[in-house]
Amino acid sequence: MQKSNTKISMAVIRRLPKYRRYLEELLDKGINRISSRELSKIIGFTASQIRQDLNNFGGFGQQGYGYNVAALYEEIGKILGLDNVYNTIIIGAGNLGQAIANYTNFEKAGFIPKAMFDINPRLIGLKIRDIEIMDADNIEEYIKENNIDIGIICTDKEHAQDVADKLIKSNIKGIWNFAPTDLNVPEHIMLENVHLSESLYTLSFLLKHNREQEDV
Amino acid sequence: MQKSNTKISMAVIRRLPKYRRYLEELLDKGINRISSRELSKIIGFTASQIRQDLNNFGGFGQQGYGYNVAALYEEIGKILGLDNVYNTIIIGAGNLGQAIANYTNFEKAGFIPKAMFDINPRLIGLKIRDIEIMDADNIEEYIKENNIDIGIICTDKEHAQDVADKLIKSNIKGIWNFAPTDLNVPEHIMLENVHLSESLYTLSFLLKHNREQEDV
Repeated sequence: MQKSNTKISMAVIRRLPKYRRYLEELLDKGINRISSRELSKIIGFTASQIRQDLNNFGGFGQQGYGYNVAALYEEIGKILGLDNVYNTIIIGAGNLGQAIANYTNFEKAGFIPKAMFDINPRLIGLKIRDIEIMDADNIEEYIKENNIDIGIICTDKEHAQDVADKLIKSNIKGIWNFAPTDLNVPEHIMLENVHLSESLYTLSFLLKHNREQEDV
Repeated sequence: MQKSNTKISMAVIRRLPKYRRYLEELLDKGINRISSRELSKIIGFTASQIRQDLNNFGGFGQQGYGYNVAALYEEIGKILGLDNVYNTIIIGAGNLGQAIANYTNFEKAGFIPKAMFDINPRLIGLKIRDIEIMDADNIEEYIKENNIDIGIICTDKEHAQDVADKLIKSNIKGIWNFAPTDLNVPEHIMLENVHLSESLYTLSFLLKHNREQEDV
């Protein structure tokens, strides 16, 4: 079903989780079939945008029938790699790190938090759910011995690059970065940033200019 | 200096905080002037993209001189509304809400957390820094009496729309939503979402397809 993804724009890729979320809600409601027009109404993209997006991955829709919700949900999950299981560690066991460790939905989606790391002696040895907080000195050894795929950086800006360097040295595959800085990582390491201040400042812009944002 | 913003795309707006962050780092290093080519090297956008983006807001650059870093930094801050002060409340005082309450950089940028709200009796009455956690029953009254501009929703998915409805009734101006759901809000309320799972699933896509993402 799936075509090569090399030409698919990041904008399309970033819309896929949203499609998946809406499809999940439809499944929860027992809806098994939907037209791009109906999907457009609930998701807020135009029907032609939806058809275009989903055509990137092969023909899920059938003229006059619409989309099979379950099949599309599952296929988008596969495209997103959610049929895989990823071992993760969280570096920085403050409030944000703990929030992520406590958020079991990520685990349900296949992102298994194996350990947390911190430099604060008062945190080392504690557990969040059943996830132990370890000494940050042991990050590299732990990654190598436990097949860790993803490092989630929840440290402050000042420590983030040092942590990233340790992750890179240990052959991590991906980094999910919450520190408010841009990390230098080699091209073969996948990096995704959550820059909360950029989101907040966008809201500030919208408030100042009293402007509704279009869906992207 | 500033032209009308009505035609500026959300993509450009979302790049502005990144420009501002890099300009801040240049200022910290004592760099007062930069060409779009040099800026391109450090920020990763093309020089022509940078010129195009910044031309939206009037002519900051001068041929053969480059950009005045301090002036550009300040002007982007103004465009983003960071010369304003916003009163905020955080609804949901779990780890994520506490992480945001503890993150003083938002306060430095003018987003003042006035109170937190929760339904958990064990949290009500506690303080994070000097921010009191109050009973969620009092949200509407509190907003009206304290000129609250922004409600930050850190509840679970199930409570998020109810909270949003209360905020809307109390004439909040903007909502920063961390709950993993899309809220229904009227057009005059500015809404910005942080959907963490969408970011994580994008990383998953990149890992599965071993694909570097382009800057956007």
